[in-house]
Formats: sequence, structure tokens, C-alpha cells
Amino acid sequence: MAELFEDLNPPQRLLMGPGPVNAHPRVLAAMSAPLLGQFDPQFREYMKQTSALYRGVFQTANRWTLLVDGTARAAIEAALVSLIEPGDRVLVPVFGRFGNLIVEIARRCGADVRVIEVEWGKVFADEALQATVSREKPKLVAVCHGDTSTTMAQPLAALGKACREHDALLYVDATATLGGMDIQTDAWQLDVVTAGLQKCMGGPPGSAPLTLNERAERRIVRRRHIEAGLQDNKYKAGEGPIIASNYFDLAMIMDYWSDKALNHHTEATSMLYAARECARIVLQEGLANAFARHAAASRALTAGLKAIGLELFGDQDHKMPNITGVHIPRGVDGEAVRRALLAEHNIEIGTSFGPLHGRIWRIGTMGYNAREDAVLATLDALEAVLAAQKFKLPRRAGVDAARSAFG
Amino acid sequence: MAELFEDLNPPQRLLMGPGPVNAHPRVLAAMSAPLLGQFDPQFREYMKQTSALYRGVFQTANRWTLLVDGTARAAIEAALVSLIEPGDRVLVPVFGRFGNLIVEIARRCGADVRVIEVEWGKVFADEALQATVSREKPKLVAVCHGDTSTTMAQPLAALGKACREHDALLYVDATATLGGMDIQTDAWQLDVVTAGLQKCMGGPPGSAPLTLNERAERRIVRRRHIEAGLQDNKYKAGEGPIIASNYFDLAMIMDYWSDKALNHHTEATSMLYAARECARIVLQEGLANAFARHAAASRALTAGLKAIGLELFGDQDHKMPNITGVHIPRGVDGEAVRRALLAEHNIEIGTSFGPLHGRIWRIGTMGYNAREDAVLATLDALEAVLAAQKFKLPRRAGVDAARSAFG
Repeated sequence: MAELFEDLNPPQRLLMGPGPVNAHPRVLAAMSAPLLGQFDPQFREYMKQTSALYRGVFQTANRWTLLVDGTARAAIEAALVSLIEPGDRVLVPVFGRFGNLIVEIARRCGADVRVIEVEWGKVFADEALQATVSREKPKLVAVCHGDTSTTMAQPLAALGKACREHDALLYVDATATLGGMDIQTDAWQLDVVTAGLQKCMGGPPGSAPLTLNERAERRIVRRRHIEAGLQDNKYKAGEGPIIASNYFDLAMIMDYWSDKALNHHTEATSMLYAARECARIVLQEGLANAFARHAAASRALTAGLKAIGLELFGDQDHKMPNITGVHIPRGVDGEAVRRALLAEHNIEIGTSFGPLHGRIWRIGTMGYNAREDAVLATLDALEAVLAAQKFKLPRRAGVDAARSAFG
Repeated sequence: MAELFEDLNPPQRLLMGPGPVNAHPRVLAAMSAPLLGQFDPQFREYMKQTSALYRGVFQTANRWTLLVDGTARAAIEAALVSLIEPGDRVLVPVFGRFGNLIVEIARRCGADVRVIEVEWGKVFADEALQATVSREKPKLVAVCHGDTSTTMAQPLAALGKACREHDALLYVDATATLGGMDIQTDAWQLDVVTAGLQKCMGGPPGSAPLTLNERAERRIVRRRHIEAGLQDNKYKAGEGPIIASNYFDLAMIMDYWSDKALNHHTEATSMLYAARECARIVLQEGLANAFARHAAASRALTAGLKAIGLELFGDQDHKMPNITGVHIPRGVDGEAVRRALLAEHNIEIGTSFGPLHGRIWRIGTMGYNAREDAVLATLDALEAVLAAQKFKLPRRAGVDAARSAFG
């Protein structure tokens, strides 16, 4: 008989990295509910409820608020490949790795990509973005809201206004911020926003919420195409160039989620259950309360790190509340610290990418883990591991400072 | 406060359609296990085990045996977009809707697609396929193994041999057959095979196993590309045209699954747990036993349907054992029967697409549901509903015939 390996029995880690973080227990429980057929009336009702719930989370009235079946990156690609026609000018403000990802995907979609960059650890001034939109006149501006690689969050309201003034569409990757930071899709005039579950939404990776408004819908529907074998005189195809992907064809995904219920990809049942429960938990807490909880965890964590004697990374005025970059002190082996935290304390914190690799750790306070006990346990463990590495620090100062910050 | 809807509480359906079917209870339980970080040593170990387990399921020694994070269709697209370079000649034998899907995706990839077709309900003779491969000299042949739209399964061994002789790659969509029918990836010389969990593997949709051999690897790696911000002198990019998708770039997904562990998409943790458990269950039963169980369920179901007085659809010599097409009898409202089965008996059977729409029902006996009690309950309910629709039938004949067939 083939090797079957042991029964699944993952250790109970406390995941304080850039995500995935621990899923809320209610979300884990939801995934073990019995499956339904994709056209079962009860399942279609759950799909509709999921749309309604994510309208609440995205702060939008957009009819088209749905899930892309894949990780957060799947929704980024679905948005870009459905919006970008080959040759379209696309402006991407890059302030970290996930900006680079948008550039890369947009190029694969055949866009004429214009990039503006700031140093990792900063964001763009509103005026700089407005001037660039005015100068470049892109068809689409695509930007990451909170880039976990640098822990920075880009303010979006002025950019939304500029895009509307210059008739550009605005796409926002809110993977790392949805549920943890204010994202006013409608008020800020964001045309398409995508996210994931595994950050502030308190779920596992594998389902990606997306919302799009009527401006985006018009762009997409002109490229509408109906799968052979499902063709029907009732529904008309569009005139525009076909979307390069079938799986990420948002016109088709909209037809699947709509009352037409045109067959497409077989909705990922258990992940939809998870996504629905994530949204219920966030809305039950209340968006304002959830944002305040993330902000409080961030204040406490940063107070604790400073009290330990560590230096925070980047522009603190634009730091995301759900992730914190902290410099690895001179003489300390950053990876050895991470290994010891995992081995001795079952706590995961994050490494970093590109220009920051080996220079900073990234500590998440996301979703279910944006809690006092999680922050205190992390600081406590970090103190212990740093002390074992002969880093001089005032014992208990980090935990005490964090407790005080929580009030 | 926003409308939160009720607690998740799906009815306990018996899903006897073309999939998703009921997940095995062990798979549902696996999804509620605690999450791990994507680079946690234990999680990397689970990824390796998952590869090893699917090598067993795919009957292959292929190093690259991994999951694509999406539904079955995601792996189809990942295979095609990674293998097809624009302008490549691709031959697609079409015998149902999922052949049409391959055609469509291949066209979106820029292929020069050549199609051969047979009537829905039949498959291709080996000689016809061999002659076409020899004549068309495609770079790639892409075919569905078992097309649930017609319930037919295409024999593959002769096609594999022909592709090797004419230096074509062979891609097989085994979404609906993996775990339920023999698929000898290596022995039949299949270069790339993809599947899903929601049919004979007994899991939910949302994760798509894929295996590829060294011939396919060479084709893909020449198009290798490293994400900006992760670039590193250690790893060389290829010379071929970049793959049009980032999310489905198998060269990148291979780098993520390999010991390089290059960051890509954040593996869908809970779905990987599910996929791992599905494979353990199938291998624990033994492939031969699993295939025999599907065949027995099919024999019993078809015996029962015939005893009721219904006519089976399609070439019975090439019918998939895990799904059965049956003609809707004259004077019976097919959709009313399906609605009554669901409302009165909590049993789902399938409708059909395209030329078969309104003409046949499709009844699945897949994965966890390829069981005697599930077949008997379905026949019993179908008898009751047909009788209520004034269809004349010998009461209990269906169930009795099925019981006898099970022996």
C-alpha cells in the first residue's frame, strides 16, 4: 500500500506574520458544513447573502460583489485581465512588492504600463498621484492599498477623485486591509476592489472577494463572451476583444453569480461558507469596532517593540495598523530568532522580501489575532528569544508598555 | 447594523448529480484544522506529502505533482496557458461540453486550434485519433478523459502512444474521473493531467491536483520568469515567451512547491488539508477497490433505471462508471422531477447542457456517494416521484434490481 502519512494534526501556532493568520474558530467550523450543489436554491441563497455581506464589508452598493475562487492574487488577476485590453495605458504607483506584482500582471495582460515609485517605507503624496494621473491620462490606475511588504498604506480618496476627473478607472488591491482598515469603496470612488480572507477577514486563503461598480461593468461587459455549449439567443456577446482568461473572465463570473446562473466554474462550496462567515463576524463586530481593534493592537505592539529597544520601520504616519515592520537589531540573527519563536513558543512572525530582506521582521496583528493576549504573548516570546541571543533589553518592558497602551 | 442572515445551516442533501457530491466526513473535518503559515516547516511537509499522495492517485513518478489553488477549471487553464505558446497548433478531440471548454481556453491562449468532433454520447475510435494526430502534427493534444456532459469516457492509451510517436504533448482533463476510473499517467504516456476534488475524490471544489512530466516541464521552464522583487541571481529565467497568466504560471507554481519555496500565491491552507485527506482516503481504500466500487454503483444504478422502465443515454461501452445519463421519459417534466426529488427527498440529480438539455437527467455515483445505500435511496425516491407524475412503473422494481446487482 502507498505511504499514507499520519493523520492531519497541525501544531497550534499563533500566526503573527503577514498572513495567513489564525482563522476565527467560527470560520473553521463553517467549512465542515455539508456541501450543497451549485444550483441548489439554498446554495444560490448563500451566494446572494455572501454578496450582500461583502457589500457591507466593502462599504458599497455595487450589485457585482462576489467571490473569485482562488487566493487573493486570483482576484487581482481577474480584475486586471478583465479590465485591461491589450495596449491600454495603465498607471501603477509602486511602493512595495505588491505594486510590482500589479505591474507584472498588467504587463502580462498586454498593458502599456507606466510606473511611478517611491522608496520602500513611504507612500505617495496625493498631489504626486493627481499630477501623474493628469499627465499620463491612463485608462486604468491600479494600486495596492496596504502593501504588507513595506507595511505602508496608501491613502486613496484623492486618487479616486483624480481618476474620476480624468476618466480613468481605479482598481485597488485591498488584500491586506479589508476588514482591518477603512475602505470606502463608494465614497472614495474606487471602481474595482479585491481582497482575500487570510489577513484581516480572519479566514483561510483560497477565496477572494471582489466588488466592481457600473463604470467597471461597462468596460467588462463589452468583452462578454458566452461559453460554447451554453450559448443561447437570450444573452448577447459583447463587441470588445475577448478576455484572455476563461477562469478569470469577470463577465462570465458575473453571469454565474447573477440570476442567469450560467454555468462556469463550480463555486468552491466550503470556501464560500468560510467567506460568508468571515463577513458575518466582521459585520457583527461592526466595521468601526474592527478598525479600532486593529489600531489598538498596532499601538500596543509598537509601544512594546519600542520599549524593548527596537526601531520601527518606515513612515509611521502611513503604517498599516495590522502589520508592523521592525528593524532586526545589529548583531542579532533574524532568522534564528524566527526559528526560536516557532520552535519554543509556537509563534510565527514574518521575514521580508527584496530590499528589506534580512533587515526587518514583520509582525502582523490581523483579523482574529488583533487581540491583546496575542500581542502580549508575542512580545513576551520575542523578549525571551532576544535575551537568549544576548541582546540587552529591559526585561518585561515590552509587555508592560503594550499592556499600558491597551489601557 | 447590517443584515447578518442566519447561522450557516445547509440541509443534508444527498448529492447524486455530476458534482460537487457530498464530501467524505473525514475531509470536512480536515478543513477545520488550525492554519499554518505557508513557510512553516510543518506546512511545507504537508505540501510534500500531498505531492507524494497524488503521485499515488495519478499513478505517476512525476516530481511535479501539486495543487492549483482554484476549482478544477483553474488547473485546466494553468496547464493550457503554461503549455501553449501563441500560434502553437493544438488538437482538441471534442465529445461534449468540456471538450468545448478546452477549445475555448486554448483559443484564448492564442493557439491555432484544430477540432475533431463526435456526436454527444459517443467517443473516438483509437484509429481516428491516431490518424488525426499523424495528419495535423499538433504541438499539443488536449482532451477530456470523462466528459460529465455526455457521461462518456475516452480511452487514452492509444492516444498517448500516438502523441509520443509524433512528438506532441498530451494534456488530459481528468476532473471527473480521477479516483473513480483507472488513469495510468505514466503507463499511458500522459504528459499533463489535471483534476478536481469534487467528483470521485470525495472533497469540495476549490483545489485542483495537477501532475506533469519532464517533457512538459521542459516546455514550461523555457518560459520561466521570476517575479520582480523576488529576483535573485541564483535562479535563471527562460528564453521563451512569458506565460500570459501570473496566477496560472506553472513555472512559478513549481518554484513555489519546490525547495526553493519562491513566494507566489499563498497556498490555500484548508483546501490543501482537504486535498491531502481526499488522497489518503482513496489510497487507503486502494485504487483498484475504489474503481471497483464506482463500477459496482454504476451497474446497480443502471440496472435499477432499466427496471423502472427508463432508457439509458449514450454508448454504454464507454459510459463513465461514476455518472449515468438517462432519458427523461415522454410526458414527464424533467425539472419538476428534479425539484420534487430535492424538496421531498433531499436528493439532487443533474440536469444537462447544450444538445442534451431537457432530454436527459444525469445521475452521479461519485466518490463518497458511490455507495449501495445512496444508489438505493436515489432509485427509491425517483420511483416515488415518477409515480406521482403518473409515469407507469413496476413499483420497487428499480430498487430490487439494484440490490441484486450489488449482490
